[in-house]
Amino acid sequence: MRIAVLGYGRVARALARLIAQQRHVYPFRIVAAHTLRHGTAYDLYGLPEEPAFGPAAADAEEFLDRSQAEILVELTALNPDNGEPAASHIRAAFLRGMHVATANKGPIACCYADLAEEARRAGVEFRFESAVMDGAPVFNLARHCLPGTGVIGFAGALNSTTQVILDAMRRGLTLEDGIEEARRLGVTEADPWFDIDGWDSACKAAALANVLMDARVTPAAVNRRGIGRLTPEKIAEAERAGKRIVLVSRGRRTPQGVKLRVRAEVLDARDMLAQARGTSNVLVLHTDTMGELGVFSQNPGLDQTAYGVFADLVDIARSL
Amino acid sequence: MRIAVLGYGRVARALARLIAQQRHVYPFRIVAAHTLRHGTAYDLYGLPEEPAFGPAAADAEEFLDRSQAEILVELTALNPDNGEPAASHIRAAFLRGMHVATANKGPIACCYADLAEEARRAGVEFRFESAVMDGAPVFNLARHCLPGTGVIGFAGALNSTTQVILDAMRRGLTLEDGIEEARRLGVTEADPWFDIDGWDSACKAAALANVLMDARVTPAAVNRRGIGRLTPEKIAEAERAGKRIVLVSRGRRTPQGVKLRVRAEVLDARDMLAQARGTSNVLVLHTDTMGELGVFSQNPGLDQTAYGVFADLVDIARSL
Repeated sequence: MRIAVLGYGRVARALARLIAQQRHVYPFRIVAAHTLRHGTAYDLYGLPEEPAFGPAAADAEEFLDRSQAEILVELTALNPDNGEPAASHIRAAFLRGMHVATANKGPIACCYADLAEEARRAGVEFRFESAVMDGAPVFNLARHCLPGTGVIGFAGALNSTTQVILDAMRRGLTLEDGIEEARRLGVTEADPWFDIDGWDSACKAAALANVLMDARVTPAAVNRRGIGRLTPEKIAEAERAGKRIVLVSRGRRTPQGVKLRVRAEVLDARDMLAQARGTSNVLVLHTDTMGELGVFSQNPGLDQTAYGVFADLVDIARSL
Repeated sequence: MRIAVLGYGRVARALARLIAQQRHVYPFRIVAAHTLRHGTAYDLYGLPEEPAFGPAAADAEEFLDRSQAEILVELTALNPDNGEPAASHIRAAFLRGMHVATANKGPIACCYADLAEEARRAGVEFRFESAVMDGAPVFNLARHCLPGTGVIGFAGALNSTTQVILDAMRRGLTLEDGIEEARRLGVTEADPWFDIDGWDSACKAAALANVLMDARVTPAAVNRRGIGRLTPEKIAEAERAGKRIVLVSRGRRTPQGVKLRVRAEVLDARDMLAQARGTSNVLVLHTDTMGELGVFSQNPGLDQTAYGVFADLVDIARSL
């Protein structure tokens, strides 16, 4: 199947390598790539991992039209306010009868219900496994392994930057030291306060609620407080009491609708969520049939994010 | 779809309730049930949760022939030596062109490769989600959510009885007290030494290796040591050192084939496997594409085991 990639950065390169490794079993081919910085590349026979970019297409529409791709892989940078420009790219692909796989949480957090409806009307598939947990099965798990199951709520330690910062503060370092450490590890977004203030966690909470609980919310609807006011003293006090502070995204179904919250929670040290360190994430789904069911990934990186997109591509191909 | 149930105990009743709850979306119908103790019941329009059992069919073959079912749900008691009689029941169903879902780890641990091959030749489906982790997605997860992924190894805290016993011993009680507690909670097999000696964990290791790593082993091939020689003193010593003793099933791919081991391991208290308590199980898969990926279920019971069978039924129906 022919793939167009919008946003050709490190995840896209990891995806290109994975597609090359798996090409004998899964015949995917990246035939077009577009970045704001480097320009646009097309090759119907398949681009190399490092494409020779030529002049940039005038816009995403022109890029999609020329690509002759069947699937758009959307990997542009996140805008948590409205999910743009990713949402428009995704819509443009749907209008052209293209399936879409994205690792971008913005559109899922901001306008999932509309996008899912547009995909349905266009008769195409829409996948986003890497939007919340770096490729660990969450959405495809619910889709394929939990038939007849309702998600009543969830709790997740889903933000790597704050985990690295809190680990540093547990060792007596400052918030600023922690930010430096997260930068060195390459886990922060461009602006670390997006993580520290809980916006990333709010986006992930909204995305989970929209997809798994049919919530139709945006990140702004999440009751959100970050870790910015935590001091090393507060953290040490929790540790002494056998507790552990973790930034947690929670959702639960109530008679008034789905309630979403992001907080630095003081957890029992033996809580599964309290084990999340570094880039490791933990998510617990509260379900009506399978009780409390959890998923975690240990220190995932870009290769795992790329794998989530790859799994989406295979899922799209299988569903046709 | 019409279902025949072999072994109509507590899991079967929970499954019958679940099928009734979901009948408007998933049109499954239990049309035949057979137990050694109570006899046999047939009703093409669907049996109630508590069937009126009549005279027992002469054997499983006669039961299957008369049932007119499309799917066999195999829930008879476990025999870890050779997976019988479940394996023969499953083969009899395949020969009649029936799909099979089972919660029985014996056949998966003892002769999975042969059964999978026989199902393929018969053109029918074979599922067993509840064989290892009480219904939590493991096998269906690998089947649907991990395309192109090789499992290099695994580590699991998969035995509830020893977890209850070790919890009791941590509180200063004896092994015998722990057995009593596991009995009261209803988590032991008929013979608790099957769990204590690590046979249950060995069966689960063999089942995981057979399905996820194409290992073609039996439980006897597992290097196995149970918790029978652990003393409260040893357990307290580990706790004082910030460690935690857990019965762990491990598998790893080596140049000499898949190596399997069951041991009471001394784990770091923050290890994900060290959080398994009561009936909660934790499994970590070591993969080539998704790194270390984990699944856990918090205090699952019979309803979750039944749900795993239900998920298998849906998966069979979807695959047709």
